[in-house]
Amino acid sequence: MDSERLERQIRFAVEIDKLKSVERRTWLVDRSRREDAAGHSWHLAAMCMLLAEYATEQLDICRAVQMALVHDLVEIDAGDTYVYDTEAAADKPERERRAADRLFSLLPPDQAQQWRSLWEEFEGRQTPEARFVAAVDRLQPILNNYYTGGAAWQEHHIRIDQVLERNRPFAEAVPALWELIQRLLQDAVRQGMLQPGPASDNPPPSGP
Amino acid sequence: MDSERLERQIRFAVEIDKLKSVERRTWLVDRSRREDAAGHSWHLAAMCMLLAEYATEQLDICRAVQMALVHDLVEIDAGDTYVYDTEAAADKPERERRAADRLFSLLPPDQAQQWRSLWEEFEGRQTPEARFVAAVDRLQPILNNYYTGGAAWQEHHIRIDQVLERNRPFAEAVPALWELIQRLLQDAVRQGMLQPGPASDNPPPSGP
Repeated sequence: MDSERLERQIRFAVEIDKLKSVERRTWLVDRSRREDAAGHSWHLAAMCMLLAEYATEQLDICRAVQMALVHDLVEIDAGDTYVYDTEAAADKPERERRAADRLFSLLPPDQAQQWRSLWEEFEGRQTPEARFVAAVDRLQPILNNYYTGGAAWQEHHIRIDQVLERNRPFAEAVPALWELIQRLLQDAVRQGMLQPGPASDNPPPSGP
Repeated sequence: MDSERLERQIRFAVEIDKLKSVERRTWLVDRSRREDAAGHSWHLAAMCMLLAEYATEQLDICRAVQMALVHDLVEIDAGDTYVYDTEAAADKPERERRAADRLFSLLPPDQAQQWRSLWEEFEGRQTPEARFVAAVDRLQPILNNYYTGGAAWQEHHIRIDQVLERNRPFAEAVPALWELIQRLLQDAVRQGMLQPGPASDNPPPSGP
């Protein structure tokens, strides 16, 4: 056994424990605390297993699940960038690239390459797996927001048109999930969890 | 699209958010809080990707990772049973079986069958994937304990012979990981993180 190789892998395993301390804006459904990026990554990977049948392209579910597990690792250094924070979004690619350089270089070279490729594939959105994981990655916090009565949306005075605009490019690659998201959002406006946007995005005034 | 099917899947996706609130005894490496079962499941799945090469049997890594994601879901109802709590261990199988009955029945029948099979396969330890995931499931909290200076071991006055006895049946299926665990534990005794056991389990009195 190559003990230096195993040592590097173990150092990496210990390092990525930090993802459990990266706080997101989303609340847990039971509202006991905000979600962390490790719990989110687990939820995303499980939801990819659960919802794979809605992908419209042939999917390697194995790679999709591994991509979900790896997709937020760079947040260990770069932190979570709130999807509606346009200022923080400006230097997000650079912060995340530097994080990837440091983190993946902890691994033995062959695994550094493999893990970084998974992350870059996710970021690139050029493969069926990346597009599917990105769509589910949009649905998950929307579910948590909806089932906490819009907790994070209300804190940040978010409007439906912002949510639609930010999520459409990723979520509409999986039409069944995009339809579901739109229904949830329109119901969220009706229930006062989410602020109405320009007239065209708003639901009719009567209940569901 | 079968909307009743999607509704069941979404209800399940929301239900399993509760795994993020199941507290384990293990502390995060940064000691900011105790680990939760969702973060643990993510860490385990990622470590299965990372350490697959140490399995001594041919491994379907795809199924191993999915098993890791699913293996603790029953704790949503049954809670986390501390591995050294022999009293709580007595009715653990029954509590977890009831939890599996309730939880997996939320899914559409084909998925209920698929997810339950993954959990039962893990519990049975009869396949290479189940044995490998179980071994990594032993290593992960030992790493977190070691890198927090034995935080949870010290709280519960745990001895090295208890750790060896509880973990050997699962961890020794992957010799490279079992060797690593033994080295970590012996060093933990040397450093006073873990209590010494009967003489045969103890390291020599001099440092490493």
